[in-house]
Amino acid sequence: MRSDVPERGFPDAEFARRTALAQERMVTEGFAGLLLMTEPDVRYFTGFHTLFWQSPTRPWFLFIPASGKPIAVIPEIGAALMRRTWLDDIRTWSAPCPKDDGIGLLTDLLAPCARAGAKIGIMKGHETSLRMPLGDWERLMSCLHGLHIADATRLVQGLRMIKSEAELVKLRYICAIGSATFARVPEIVAEGMPLEEVFRAFRREALAQGADDAPYLVGAAEADGYADVISPPSRRPLRAGDILMLDTGCTWDGYFCDFDRNWAIGHAVDKARRAHDTLWRATEAGIAAAIPGNTCQDLFRAMSDVIAKMDPSGGDIGRMGHGLGMQLTEQPSLAVFDETELQEGMVLTLEPSLSYGAGLMMVHEENIVVRAGGAELLTRRAPQELTVI
Amino acid sequence: MRSDVPERGFPDAEFARRTALAQERMVTEGFAGLLLMTEPDVRYFTGFHTLFWQSPTRPWFLFIPASGKPIAVIPEIGAALMRRTWLDDIRTWSAPCPKDDGIGLLTDLLAPCARAGAKIGIMKGHETSLRMPLGDWERLMSCLHGLHIADATRLVQGLRMIKSEAELVKLRYICAIGSATFARVPEIVAEGMPLEEVFRAFRREALAQGADDAPYLVGAAEADGYADVISPPSRRPLRAGDILMLDTGCTWDGYFCDFDRNWAIGHAVDKARRAHDTLWRATEAGIAAAIPGNTCQDLFRAMSDVIAKMDPSGGDIGRMGHGLGMQLTEQPSLAVFDETELQEGMVLTLEPSLSYGAGLMMVHEENIVVRAGGAELLTRRAPQELTVI
Repeated sequence: MRSDVPERGFPDAEFARRTALAQERMVTEGFAGLLLMTEPDVRYFTGFHTLFWQSPTRPWFLFIPASGKPIAVIPEIGAALMRRTWLDDIRTWSAPCPKDDGIGLLTDLLAPCARAGAKIGIMKGHETSLRMPLGDWERLMSCLHGLHIADATRLVQGLRMIKSEAELVKLRYICAIGSATFARVPEIVAEGMPLEEVFRAFRREALAQGADDAPYLVGAAEADGYADVISPPSRRPLRAGDILMLDTGCTWDGYFCDFDRNWAIGHAVDKARRAHDTLWRATEAGIAAAIPGNTCQDLFRAMSDVIAKMDPSGGDIGRMGHGLGMQLTEQPSLAVFDETELQEGMVLTLEPSLSYGAGLMMVHEENIVVRAGGAELLTRRAPQELTVI
Repeated sequence: MRSDVPERGFPDAEFARRTALAQERMVTEGFAGLLLMTEPDVRYFTGFHTLFWQSPTRPWFLFIPASGKPIAVIPEIGAALMRRTWLDDIRTWSAPCPKDDGIGLLTDLLAPCARAGAKIGIMKGHETSLRMPLGDWERLMSCLHGLHIADATRLVQGLRMIKSEAELVKLRYICAIGSATFARVPEIVAEGMPLEEVFRAFRREALAQGADDAPYLVGAAEADGYADVISPPSRRPLRAGDILMLDTGCTWDGYFCDFDRNWAIGHAVDKARRAHDTLWRATEAGIAAAIPGNTCQDLFRAMSDVIAKMDPSGGDIGRMGHGLGMQLTEQPSLAVFDETELQEGMVLTLEPSLSYGAGLMMVHEENIVVRAGGAELLTRRAPQELTVI
C-alpha cells in the first residue's frame, strides 16, 4: 500500500462551483433545466458515488434547475447515501416499480417547465445513451406537452472535459498506481504463464498497489505481435517471441487511468521493435503538440505524421486518444473530425497505433493533462525501447 | 487456483438454439426482426465477449431477422473478434464517427422492413436502457418511415431468464468461487483493518480463488449493525461489536454470482443475532417455495411471512431477490408486483432483508436455480448463526 493516499471525495464547494458553471451556460443557451441520468453525470454534480449503478434495474435522475441546488429523483434504496451529499431536495420512490419507476415524480417536477413551454436539456448527443427505458421516456414526454427537449451534451461534456485541481489529484494518483503496477509486470509474469493468469496477477497487483479496482483490462500475447486489442484472455501460455500487451483502466475514488504497455517475451522481431520505437516517438510528438490553443485534430495529425513513416495505411481505429476522467473514455476525441480546442485542465489519453504487416498491430498509450506551459505526464513514461522479459 | 475450471464459451449450437427459440416467439408475436444493442443481449445471441463495452463511446448493434443468423452492425475495432463467433454477416464502420455512428448501415439494413410496414422489436421495457444516443435513435426513426417499433423486453428477457445447462455450469462455478472467497474472510480480515482494506483484500482473494473479476462489491461495518447497503467503503477500522456485511458480484466467463455474508467482529448484540437467524429462516422458506408453478410473488410472500414476525414494517427495498446471469440483476423480480411463474432453469437470488431498530438493517442472500424437484443451491449455504470473527 502507498503512503501518499489522497483524501476521498470533494468539498461541497466543488459541486456548488460545477453547478454554478452549468447554470451560467444554461442561461446562455436558454435551458430552464437539465435532466441527467447516468452515473458520471449524476456524480459530477452531487458526489453521489456507489457501485449500485452496476445493477441495470433502477433508473436514477438528477434535475439541475436554472438556479439553486440540483434535485435528486431516485430509488429509496439510495436515499441514505444521497442525503450525505450537498443536496437538500431528494425525492424517492420504492423501486423497482414497473408501473411507475419515477415517471410520476418526474412529471410533477417538470410540469411547471412544460406549462411554461420551457427548454430542458438532456444528454442525447455523441457518446451518450439513455439510461432509462425508452418506453418510460416516451411516456414521460406524453405527460409533458409543451416541454421542449434539446441536446445538452456539449454543455455538460464541455464542463466535464476541464478537470479541476481536485480532480487532477485523483487522476494523478490512479495513474501512479497504474504505472507502479505496470513496472511490476516483469516480476509477476513469465514465459509459460497462461494469459488468463497474467490478467489475474495484474489485477491482484493493481489492488495491492492501492487501486480500488481494475475493472477494465484487455490485452493480447501472440508470436511477433498481436492482431486484436479487445479480446478477453485465452489460456494460451506466454512463449518466447510473443509480444505481450496489457491495457488497463484502474480506478481510485471513481476516477480512471487508461493506458497500456508492451513487452517482448524473451526476444522480439525487429519489426516489433521498430513499431514500438515509432509509437513512442509518435507519443512524444503528441505530448509536444498538447498545448492550449492547438486542437484535437492537430494532436491527431502530430502523431499520425510520425506513424505514417512506418505505416502509410494507418489503422481503422478512428482515433488516437480521448478524454479521461470518471469514464474510461470521455470526450473529446483525438481524431480528424474533432476540432475541439485544447484547454488547460483537459486530461487526455495519447493512444497511437499502427499495423506492421501480417495482420499485426501495436498500440501505445500515455495519459496527460494539458497545462498552460505544455503537457504534464500523469503516467510514468514508457521506455523508448521495447522491454524484454 | 481451482482444478475444476470449466471450458470457456459455448458451442455454436447454443447460439443457434437461442436464436431459433427467439425466432419462434417472433413469429407468434409478429416481429419481423429484433434490434439489440446492450452487451448481454448481443452476447446472448452471438458469444461476442469483450470488456470494450465499458467504453461508452461506441454503439454496437445486432439484428435478429425472422430467419437465419443474426447480423452484426458494429465498430470496425470489434470485427476481428466478431468474426470468431458463429455469425456470417458482419457490417462495420470506422467508429467513433459523430456524423454517422452506424445509422447509415442500420438504415440500409432496416429499409426493407420499413417499406413493408413491418414490426421490429427493441428493448424498451422495464429494466432496460437505450444504449445509443437518443438523438441517433430519433434520426434513425426519421429515416425509416413505415417501420413499426414495439417492445420486445418480455420476449428476450423471457428467453434469458431460463438458463441452459451450459450456462448453469458457469453460474455454479462462479458461485463456488464466491463461496470459497467468503469462507476465507475470517482469515483475511481482522479488528483494526480499515473497511477500504477489507474490500481490497476481498477482491484479491476472489481473484486468487479464480474469479475473472469482482466488479461489484458493496458492504458496511458499523457498531451493532449497518444502515446503508450501497455505499463505497470508508477508511474506518473494524471494531469489536461491528456487524460487517460484504455483498459481491464476481464474474467468470461473463456470468455473475450475487450474494452476501454477515459477520460479527468480536461479539454481537442479541438483536443482530436474531436478525441473522430470522433472515436465514426466511431464506429457507424461499428455498422451499422455489418450485416450478409457484410465482415470484409466492416466493416473496414465503420470505416476507417469516420476516414479518421480527419486522412488521418490512423494508422499502421493493423486492427480495431477482434473476441472475450475464447481469448482476436480471428479471424476474421477487416482489409483490411480479407474477412470473417459476420455471426450471431460472437462476434467482433470494435476498430477504429486515430492519431491527435504530435505523439498523440486515440483508442476507443466496443464489439458487429452480429445478423440477425444487431449488438447487448454487452458493454454499450460510450458517444459521451469525459467524463471529
